[in-house]
Amino acid sequence: MADTADIRVTEVGPRDGLQNESVVVSEADKIAFIDRLSGSGPAEIEVSSFVSPLWVPQLADAEAVFAGITRLPGIVYSALVPNEQGLRRALAAGADKVSHFTAASESFCRRNTNASIDETFSRLAPIVAGAHAAGITVGGYISCVVSCPYEGPTDPKQVRLVAARLLDAGIDTIDLGETIGVAVPDDIERLYEGLDGVVQPSRTTLHLHDTRGTALSCAATAIRIGVRRFDAACGGLGGCPYAPGAAGNLATEDLVYFCDRMGYATGMDVSALFEAAKFMSGVLGRGLPGRVFNAEGKSH
Amino acid sequence: MADTADIRVTEVGPRDGLQNESVVVSEADKIAFIDRLSGSGPAEIEVSSFVSPLWVPQLADAEAVFAGITRLPGIVYSALVPNEQGLRRALAAGADKVSHFTAASESFCRRNTNASIDETFSRLAPIVAGAHAAGITVGGYISCVVSCPYEGPTDPKQVRLVAARLLDAGIDTIDLGETIGVAVPDDIERLYEGLDGVVQPSRTTLHLHDTRGTALSCAATAIRIGVRRFDAACGGLGGCPYAPGAAGNLATEDLVYFCDRMGYATGMDVSALFEAAKFMSGVLGRGLPGRVFNAEGKSH
Repeated sequence: MADTADIRVTEVGPRDGLQNESVVVSEADKIAFIDRLSGSGPAEIEVSSFVSPLWVPQLADAEAVFAGITRLPGIVYSALVPNEQGLRRALAAGADKVSHFTAASESFCRRNTNASIDETFSRLAPIVAGAHAAGITVGGYISCVVSCPYEGPTDPKQVRLVAARLLDAGIDTIDLGETIGVAVPDDIERLYEGLDGVVQPSRTTLHLHDTRGTALSCAATAIRIGVRRFDAACGGLGGCPYAPGAAGNLATEDLVYFCDRMGYATGMDVSALFEAAKFMSGVLGRGLPGRVFNAEGKSH
Repeated sequence: MADTADIRVTEVGPRDGLQNESVVVSEADKIAFIDRLSGSGPAEIEVSSFVSPLWVPQLADAEAVFAGITRLPGIVYSALVPNEQGLRRALAAGADKVSHFTAASESFCRRNTNASIDETFSRLAPIVAGAHAAGITVGGYISCVVSCPYEGPTDPKQVRLVAARLLDAGIDTIDLGETIGVAVPDDIERLYEGLDGVVQPSRTTLHLHDTRGTALSCAATAIRIGVRRFDAACGGLGGCPYAPGAAGNLATEDLVYFCDRMGYATGMDVSALFEAAKFMSGVLGRGLPGRVFNAEGKSH
């Protein structure tokens, strides 16, 4: 893939972003937010999660949100599903793609999904079968690909093992989650070296947090290696459950600014992202951490 | 210089940071801040500016601050001087080094220094002579090395011309200022390619702002090119006078975290930086934008 190749952005603000907010955002505000995000032109929007409302009350209205949004052609509207029941709900809601969580760290996997890594794969099998029968794609998220808040640094070989299992299980896409925002470029190099051809960089999505200001330095290295798919959240929504007050996901505007200036087309409209971030900042009643939003977007 | 080489950090929070604050910090609080910064072990601290108090009232107490701080061996305590009068004040105050501002952009130079680029060089000549006669070193800052808020993108050849003039004028160090925080790694590559051997990367200091979240990605590229000296400000102090509310200088803690994790020794103590940032955050009565400070430092 040439240096002029497109970068594919998955907007994860509505799910990974709002899931980590203490404020529960209304269904109407979520719909208005997602419709604004559709106007920014991402390749994919992670709309919500069909997890039990007992686990994630912030996203209990996943069906209503899917029903209320205005879908634009060319955008994949996806959802997380923890199990077969979640898949049924996602299919009924008309999700274009479902994703399932596992992790490179056993401790994190248990705390994040209430299941061992093996159990996440037991749950994945019927999800893959059901999703493919329904004609939609299935993504596999691997959390803690660089480090785990409980176990410390992750061995890249462990990421390779989990990635290989995901591919064996029939998933269509792999999303590598740098869950806690500690990575520097050398970690990204080690991560992809460790994958050792099990999956090509261009076939992975990299999910970065800007907790320590390193997200774009990692994205730069990933792009050089051949990664062309990134998760990002409008305004840098998301926080980090392990670092109260810390910055959240890599801000979509920061990634788009970076790509534009580096000569990689994303097809995204930063003005629309500013509007969406301003809207959600108002709903949450607080500032958002995204750098470009604070530099240019608030007065846009 | 091998990849394990030290990175030399100049702490610019007391000068570039506080100069851009609307709150005027008391002399006692500046001294307490700088003493805490000395404890963090930077190679250099830019203590203040011997500019006219009419121009920068925030730094009108430069003499008193120099007199009040406790100097630690091995740290260079430097000051900005706009002219010969400033040099006399700096020498009387015992500055270890003085720096003078010019720019790669004529418009910025006039607005920032009230002088044309040629005039900054007329002012520089007696500064170099006087400083060297007194046995101290002279640095030359070049503002707007990547882009100018008034003129747009800077031609790297213009940076080379100004750098060559600074060297001809006898300055000892060159500091390349990415004044407005727009740079991405490609800009840093073009900047150093443009210097074309006039000055080796390892002999320059790079001054980055994290206005758009790109500072560490630029630092990573600079380190790869051979740059080993960076300016940074504790807590990310500094703001940007051209983008109200935007993040400021590259935060020292972010740079130190990045270097530590990439295997480059800085000799700096992040705990002491956290203490200094917490102190100044309290003095200013607001949060600071540094990512690592917000993730780890506030509860330290």
